[in-house]
Amino acid sequence: MKYISLLGSTGSIGTQTLDIIKEHPTEFSLAAMSVGRNVNLARQIIAEFHPELVCMLEKDDAESLKLEFPKISFTYGPEGLSEVAVYKKSTILVNAVMGSVGLEPTLHAIEAGKTIALANKETLVTAGHIVMEAVRRNQVPLLPVDSEHSAIFQALQGEYEKNIDKLILTASGGSFRDRTRNELENVTVQDALNHPNWSMGAKITIDSATMMNKGLEVIEAHWMFGVPYENIDVVLHKESIIHSMIEFHDSSVMAQLGTPDMRVPIQYALTFPNRLPLKTAQRLNLAKVGQLHFAEMDMERFRCLKFAYEAGMAGGTLPTVLNAANEIAVEAFLKGKITFLQIEDLIENTLTNHQSIMEPSLAEIKAVDVDTRKYVNSLL
Amino acid sequence: MKYISLLGSTGSIGTQTLDIIKEHPTEFSLAAMSVGRNVNLARQIIAEFHPELVCMLEKDDAESLKLEFPKISFTYGPEGLSEVAVYKKSTILVNAVMGSVGLEPTLHAIEAGKTIALANKETLVTAGHIVMEAVRRNQVPLLPVDSEHSAIFQALQGEYEKNIDKLILTASGGSFRDRTRNELENVTVQDALNHPNWSMGAKITIDSATMMNKGLEVIEAHWMFGVPYENIDVVLHKESIIHSMIEFHDSSVMAQLGTPDMRVPIQYALTFPNRLPLKTAQRLNLAKVGQLHFAEMDMERFRCLKFAYEAGMAGGTLPTVLNAANEIAVEAFLKGKITFLQIEDLIENTLTNHQSIMEPSLAEIKAVDVDTRKYVNSLL
Repeated sequence: MKYISLLGSTGSIGTQTLDIIKEHPTEFSLAAMSVGRNVNLARQIIAEFHPELVCMLEKDDAESLKLEFPKISFTYGPEGLSEVAVYKKSTILVNAVMGSVGLEPTLHAIEAGKTIALANKETLVTAGHIVMEAVRRNQVPLLPVDSEHSAIFQALQGEYEKNIDKLILTASGGSFRDRTRNELENVTVQDALNHPNWSMGAKITIDSATMMNKGLEVIEAHWMFGVPYENIDVVLHKESIIHSMIEFHDSSVMAQLGTPDMRVPIQYALTFPNRLPLKTAQRLNLAKVGQLHFAEMDMERFRCLKFAYEAGMAGGTLPTVLNAANEIAVEAFLKGKITFLQIEDLIENTLTNHQSIMEPSLAEIKAVDVDTRKYVNSLL
Repeated sequence: MKYISLLGSTGSIGTQTLDIIKEHPTEFSLAAMSVGRNVNLARQIIAEFHPELVCMLEKDDAESLKLEFPKISFTYGPEGLSEVAVYKKSTILVNAVMGSVGLEPTLHAIEAGKTIALANKETLVTAGHIVMEAVRRNQVPLLPVDSEHSAIFQALQGEYEKNIDKLILTASGGSFRDRTRNELENVTVQDALNHPNWSMGAKITIDSATMMNKGLEVIEAHWMFGVPYENIDVVLHKESIIHSMIEFHDSSVMAQLGTPDMRVPIQYALTFPNRLPLKTAQRLNLAKVGQLHFAEMDMERFRCLKFAYEAGMAGGTLPTVLNAANEIAVEAFLKGKITFLQIEDLIENTLTNHQSIMEPSLAEIKAVDVDTRKYVNSLL
């Protein structure tokens, strides 16, 4: 039995992680979990999965749920996230919480020797140098949950990292892949939320449409696999069947494929290095799919991807700024305060106005994160 | 330094193996080799690669070359092939000889503890049960050279065989993939030899056009990876970019891709489990390729594939009959004695008329091979 700590239980990755736990009741058990503000869903999950420790965002919610579930321990707030992350019984942390709040629990779990299944983008984007140093020092497995990084990780099994020539991330192109920049002028929030291949949360769906999601993935891939940015390519692949690839120096390309289903990479992270059956997954039938399409990525069409490469290559606190500016800009777009293309403008403006700090400490990253959010909000 | 015994040095796989040895002179050395009747090419190879032992098909050729290269040992005939295969200095046998003559040298090399890089189809098709038992008993690595089996083998690294749900072999469709059966009535030898993706020998190019090549590969894959025929699929993929795939029981599909180039799987067999750079290989650029196509395999259109599945599933000496009948039929087609579609008819007739022997011994396999050739020749 593998005991799991799950941060972000009610989100898209969180609920699908619970599906996997449910699918394999003799293999996995939910030991500890965190929930944001969705008390109703928290109640259902607690009743079904019987975790021993639950962290709520708000103290009030923790206290009221405690009355309903007196045998279960409750905690709350950012410190509570770390309590869940290092919960003694758990051997693996699935970090599916959104935002920079996910960073510190990951670091605590690494120091506590837990295996990390990482879905929280900010962990590597803002503090890749700190996280990877901690991973190496504590020799804990860092397992990707994102479909692209999982594909690369699966393709890397049985191989030597030194033989990698190139990582090739595939990008569906998001909701607006067939539109020109001119056609993006007046797109609505509803248009943007209509992703062709993946059913995901609002923030990540917008990030797919701006291609910032791929940009953040490039930065994550850089840290997770230790590959320089020059050797990370992105190719448009609208079917999202090939989830990503590695090109080795003998020219051989290893790829992982499948019908888009986040439960596959989630389960792989939980079962690694083994696999377990996933009977409810829709099997890939390439003859039925018929065609797979690929096209070059246009960095002028998808400016956020260019910003991400530039911020990643420059390093320091620029990726933190990129990420924080993007979060606030996407939030503003979702609230109807700015247009779709203004997301890019806000990010560009913010990156340009930032004085990067090299090799930032955790405190410096946090401060830059807070300052960036203030700055972008001041522009709205 | 890895010392190599190479059977079939002047063929398509043989010369490309020599290219790889030449590309990595500090890694590989040709210790022993065999040549059929191509004395001129043998002379060039000997002068360039300085093998210590050379086997010629004919005694006369061996004797005349001995006069030119007095420091080199020469041998000849089928026994000579086995001498090359077990040559003391060699740690790996690359068996790229064509036909059933390749079987015994493989078995001798396995008993001598050599690593086997297998390009000779007959070894597994006719005697899979004997060969795999010897491989297990002697615990030698059996490495595929065929691009499809190499793709599967590469996809299997870091995985457990027990987690395999399905092998998916890709098939280009060969020279006639876009023709109906009616359009095959009067095709010429020249038409058939014009393969769209791969530059190979005449026999294998015809086998691609009839789909017998894929059929033999299915039987090989069955033995090499221990997967039942029901779990081996063939999908048409005209670009030959995805070289084959494994579907695991979590629905994840691992694939190996590349621009068609036999040197890649040959080199992988020589470097396994490592890889070495192959600078002259053309890199895969999927954006440039643009599209990959897949279609279901039609067993009525490609009857040889159906024969192969049936012979493989029935087992015993039927795969030997399939292979021998095919060899004689293809030879007859290449000589203009029969039409393209008569290849299928001859094979079907021969399979129907054979009384299969289950779990045949090596002697029985040999006898059936000889008898089948006589029988098919009697029909011409």
